[in-house]
Amino acid sequence: MPLYTSSSLRCATLDEPEHGLTEELLADTDVLTWWGHMAHGDVQDEIVERVKARVLDGMGLIVLHSGHFSKIFKSLMGTTCNLRWREAAEKERLWVMSPGHPIAEGLGEYLELPHTEMYGERFDIPAPDELIFVSWFAGGEVFRSGCCFYRGKGKIFYFRPGHETFPIYHNKEVLHVIANAAKWAAPTGSVAPVFGNAQPLEDLGQ
Amino acid sequence: MPLYTSSSLRCATLDEPEHGLTEELLADTDVLTWWGHMAHGDVQDEIVERVKARVLDGMGLIVLHSGHFSKIFKSLMGTTCNLRWREAAEKERLWVMSPGHPIAEGLGEYLELPHTEMYGERFDIPAPDELIFVSWFAGGEVFRSGCCFYRGKGKIFYFRPGHETFPIYHNKEVLHVIANAAKWAAPTGSVAPVFGNAQPLEDLGQ
Amino acid sequence: MPLYTSSSLRCATLDEPEHGLTEELLADTDVLTWWGHMAHGDVQDEIVERVKARVLDGMGLIVLHSGHFSKIFKSLMGTTCNLRWREAAEKERLWVMSPGHPIAEGLGEYLELPHTEMYGERFDIPAPDELIFVSWFAGGEVFRSGCCFYRGKGKIFYFRPGHETFPIYHNKEVLHVIANAAKWAAPTGSVAPVFGNAQPLEDLGQ
Amino acid sequence: MPLYTSSSLRCATLDEPEHGLTEELLADTDVLTWWGHMAHGDVQDEIVERVKARVLDGMGLIVLHSGHFSKIFKSLMGTTCNLRWREAAEKERLWVMSPGHPIAEGLGEYLELPHTEMYGERFDIPAPDELIFVSWFAGGEVFRSGCCFYRGKGKIFYFRPGHETFPIYHNKEVLHVIANAAKWAAPTGSVAPVFGNAQPLEDLGQ
Repeated sequence: MPLYTSSSLRCATLDEPEHGLTEELLADTDVLTWWGHMAHGDVQDEIVERVKARVLDGMGLIVLHSGHFSKIFKSLMGTTCNLRWREAAEKERLWVMSPGHPIAEGLGEYLELPHTEMYGERFDIPAPDELIFVSWFAGGEVFRSGCCFYRGKGKIFYFRPGHETFPIYHNKEVLHVIANAAKWAAPTGSVAPVFGNAQPLEDLGQ
Repeated sequence: MPLYTSSSLRCATLDEPEHGLTEELLADTDVLTWWGHMAHGDVQDEIVERVKARVLDGMGLIVLHSGHFSKIFKSLMGTTCNLRWREAAEKERLWVMSPGHPIAEGLGEYLELPHTEMYGERFDIPAPDELIFVSWFAGGEVFRSGCCFYRGKGKIFYFRPGHETFPIYHNKEVLHVIANAAKWAAPTGSVAPVFGNAQPLEDLGQ
Repeated sequence: MPLYTSSSLRCATLDEPEHGLTEELLADTDVLTWWGHMAHGDVQDEIVERVKARVLDGMGLIVLHSGHFSKIFKSLMGTTCNLRWREAAEKERLWVMSPGHPIAEGLGEYLELPHTEMYGERFDIPAPDELIFVSWFAGGEVFRSGCCFYRGKGKIFYFRPGHETFPIYHNKEVLHVIANAAKWAAPTGSVAPVFGNAQPLEDLGQ
Repeated sequence: MPLYTSSSLRCATLDEPEHGLTEELLADTDVLTWWGHMAHGDVQDEIVERVKARVLDGMGLIVLHSGHFSKIFKSLMGTTCNLRWREAAEKERLWVMSPGHPIAEGLGEYLELPHTEMYGERFDIPAPDELIFVSWFAGGEVFRSGCCFYRGKGKIFYFRPGHETFPIYHNKEVLHVIANAAKWAAPTGSVAPVFGNAQPLEDLGQ
């Protein structure tokens, strides 16, 4: 299990060359956390393809909040990833749906955020391989707020909370979930599968 | 339940303008069956996006055999859709994994194809929402040969059998499965979800 | 697709011999709808086993509301099927999570019930094979209100709405969902699998 | 992550009082590995209920080979858990279906067992929450050989290999998978959900 120290955390931004996501950096990354909002369209397709290949090869990916509309998430999901939304500073309560899952480790029955942007269903994603949280919103909606996906050798976690002005990422429980997700999404597993033309493993009598 | 008569079956090919897949035709199509092999790269991205939007809006999609590498299937899956393969005219046996599923209607415990191309795992797809067939191959491999996916409002069925020279599509049971799949994939469901900014459904006291 | 006319609907109650669920009746039943509340413990284990065997052999089962605690549902799920609940006549809104699914056919984005008993998560069931509805409750909870399960050759749908005094089963949309579910759960599929000792299908050279 | 040393491994057998599975022992157990064959019927129902409650409360459970017919596995699955079988000392090849899953950690593309008992589909279980291995058998069958299930707060792994005379549990890779599964199945997660009557979390204005 990887140990996350300050020295092992790095940050990459849109403005850097290659958005800071060089081949070398990605090869050396266990789990990438992605957040974006207004500038999804400015992310270069070539870098998106590079990140996607690395995810399918085993790097974990945590997509936060408005990252649902990022090129990388939409490309990995294969759907529009569209949703309903509203900014009314309303209350959100995230219920734990999978109490035995490592991403729920150390949590109570629910998390509460007093003032959040609302994201509501229909959330146009494939059915998650594991559904960890479902949110209740004061305005009347529900949302699948914590969703695990296995893609290639990689693990992906979408986590809804976040905002550019509400102090969501100062909330201790939200940070706890992100830390749990990083542990869950870290690379594990077998050798990379071999694709393409293959000799028979049994005698075909030919 | 739609009735499939000869008059309601139409064919579209790569060589036609817009590959024959006009907006009008797609809007009037319940289920699209896709097969391609050597020319996946020649399919225009714009048409792929059009077909994808129509699938997410409810049109069924049946992807056959080497269609696993089509742009439309890869785009909907979000993975490489890569696999192992071999042309040795070996025996394949497709075991029914979901005996209660409508796509298995009328089948026995398995289907047998005496001479087929082999497709083997690892098949790099998301875990299917429903797994209908798993194939056994004489050369020693297995393969998830019948896979259902829900994406947007659409239903997708990937079916492995097929070949450009082996007479797979003359096999009665194979045709029976494709007919079952067309019935399963036909559009059903609720009104299209509304996305975007939304007013609260409850009084937020603001 | 079966046609449900008044003549093809029958009712069986706890007080009848064998609770009205004779071998003959079950063999002649496509879909069984189950509702119970106070008397789950009075249902004979032998009859529960009989119904279970018939479900695994292909009969559809629709479990309504407080039927979540019935012996038949708990036995098929393998979990406690426990949940939170409250009787406060509060508002419930059932959001459609799978807009392309036949059980959602003809619905809008959500159903609303002005006065219901609340059922809240954690609902101790296996992850549903298909999740059709998630409920929002005025009191702050969420609930997986429409859940599909494939078990053996049978299809099971759990549907939350219902009550012994609130007129839930007079609601047109609720009845529409139950009718959709009956069509979805009707028997389909392949011949019954053969279990037990089996001769090899290939020459083992022995 | 628990460390498994010889001092932390214990064995319980049918002949012991309470089959060795006392409340105290179970409360102190992270992961229970279950194997049985001829004497499933001799296991007391009361002990099965005790083990089941502990699994739903978070203890991991690994069910080996003929344990598919144990009372505890059938009770947790809710299905017959029946299958096809044959003793012909044939070859089995277990293909890794989920190369990024922790249970596949450190494996190649497949495991091979030269002489095994055959278990074949249809295996009457719910669709696994995660499918790790599918087996190929020389005699012509396939089988879902490594299946993960989440039930309550507990994690369950069914693993097919094993036999009373073939030296399957002396195979290094088989033991490696069981060790991986023990790590995966170890308790994690949130506090136990509270069930039953609940006060509203929001003001219902009543």
